[in-house]
Amino acid sequence: MSSGPLVYLSGGVGGARLAHGLYYSLPPELLTCIVNTGDDLVHWGLQVCPDLDTMLYTLADVADVERGWGLASETFEALAGVKRYGGESWFALGDRDLATHLMRSEWLRAGATLTQITERLRTALGVRAPILPMSDAPRETMIETPSGTLSFQRWLVEARAVPRVDRVWFRGDAAASPTVLEALERARLVVIGPSNPYVSIEPILATPGVRERIARLPVLAVSPIVHGKAVKGPLAGMLQSLSGWPAEARSVARYYGSLLRGYVVEHGDHLGIDSALPVLATHTVMKTRSESRDLAQAVLSFAKELGLWS
Amino acid sequence: MSSGPLVYLSGGVGGARLAHGLYYSLPPELLTCIVNTGDDLVHWGLQVCPDLDTMLYTLADVADVERGWGLASETFEALAGVKRYGGESWFALGDRDLATHLMRSEWLRAGATLTQITERLRTALGVRAPILPMSDAPRETMIETPSGTLSFQRWLVEARAVPRVDRVWFRGDAAASPTVLEALERARLVVIGPSNPYVSIEPILATPGVRERIARLPVLAVSPIVHGKAVKGPLAGMLQSLSGWPAEARSVARYYGSLLRGYVVEHGDHLGIDSALPVLATHTVMKTRSESRDLAQAVLSFAKELGLWS
Repeated sequence: MSSGPLVYLSGGVGGARLAHGLYYSLPPELLTCIVNTGDDLVHWGLQVCPDLDTMLYTLADVADVERGWGLASETFEALAGVKRYGGESWFALGDRDLATHLMRSEWLRAGATLTQITERLRTALGVRAPILPMSDAPRETMIETPSGTLSFQRWLVEARAVPRVDRVWFRGDAAASPTVLEALERARLVVIGPSNPYVSIEPILATPGVRERIARLPVLAVSPIVHGKAVKGPLAGMLQSLSGWPAEARSVARYYGSLLRGYVVEHGDHLGIDSALPVLATHTVMKTRSESRDLAQAVLSFAKELGLWS
Repeated sequence: MSSGPLVYLSGGVGGARLAHGLYYSLPPELLTCIVNTGDDLVHWGLQVCPDLDTMLYTLADVADVERGWGLASETFEALAGVKRYGGESWFALGDRDLATHLMRSEWLRAGATLTQITERLRTALGVRAPILPMSDAPRETMIETPSGTLSFQRWLVEARAVPRVDRVWFRGDAAASPTVLEALERARLVVIGPSNPYVSIEPILATPGVRERIARLPVLAVSPIVHGKAVKGPLAGMLQSLSGWPAEARSVARYYGSLLRGYVVEHGDHLGIDSALPVLATHTVMKTRSESRDLAQAVLSFAKELGLWS
């Protein structure tokens, strides 16, 4: 019995960790990762795609797992120089990481699409499964706070996610890339990674063409909330300020609503979830590669048990 | 008795070494370095100005004196990444050096002139004397060879200066920057550094507005040829192929012709120089900072002895 193609929706670190587990649990031709590009920014004049790069580096086993972004054994000499010149230093780019942004920017100027460029980068890094930006055109996640509207990275990194988030919206009306739409047409299962629904997954779902295709497919999600806390990032405060919901796994299920056919949570986090939604309670915190692989295999088994995938 | 302002014309390494000596021999308000930008290139999408940067780094005492370009204690992590991606690696940019090109490119896009940007960089690096690009607009040195026309760095670095140079010309008709013209108006003495006359000094002289102002001033030059060899770079072959002249100090004096009021050569290199031209034979090879300073002081004393400067 052959398994159908799986599409995986992801933001940055947490999502990339589960992707790593899926990548080592599936033949590469069965896995396509669609990645949020709403967080992208132009920094030092270079096109930077934080979530795409985290995915790329994680699957290539060159990510800095401890720090949670960028490359392992990275150096920051260029940043030191930029600081000396009084340039912007709120967003750190490592020296080897710079190569990614330099080449991406150069190839964009030469007319390549972000999809083509990401394909070129992942091939050079030896990643055998496709990694797709949700869109080839800018579609920027904007954060409205009491003190004004900020681009996502300005809010997250420069303002350290301190200002309350009153609203999230997306600037630009870029459609999904043709490659993303084809992957969704071929897919037999969608897995939503343990990423922030508001600022990592919603940008993908809201990209014209995506939500209606995903709605036709069986969808599983993995909770990014564990025991009342976001594993990483600012989700807990957003659940409260954007939806008035508690920072609990059930709130994320409520966010995805009728899209979900199954939900994976940490042991003990199943309370309060709509009883009509099948739930797998398992170990979901991924600090090691084997934990990522174990969770990936649990998710895939769950999909099979539910008869959603074979 | 106060000395009048001195303008120093320079290409890269050799020129920068004498500039270092002048910088430590004169009050900074008396020294203005005008630097060749004909070698500039766009690499990895960044505006790179090799001679300006060599001057900047040399006067700031952060240059790699051994290697002859770039910064001391430099790392090349970004370059390693670019190679992995199959990007252009024929021209090496170090990690900390990248900060200079990133900031310059960013500030150019923001509308600053190359003169303003160089001022900002040299101030940040603690250099107290102005360093001026010859022009704010591109004026590219082109090298005609039997196998085609190359930009200067493609010829020098990528083709390792192997193809015979049949002709040198300058693409673009940018005028000298207003700041260069003002410096020349104020100047009381011009010193031409031990740089290549064809591809380091001629681009400056040929920039509209420069030659006629320099022709009104007393000019000294220091020979870049020592004992029949170019101290660095491809000058020997160019003297032969472009002018049919031997690689001797006298050929460079002949190149500058009536512009010169005095000429400084290595001990023993004065033979064959027009006897009407005053010559100072001294130690001109600069491997150490003290040799740079000694040569600078010899040049300044020579100018005084000749009554060209006080």
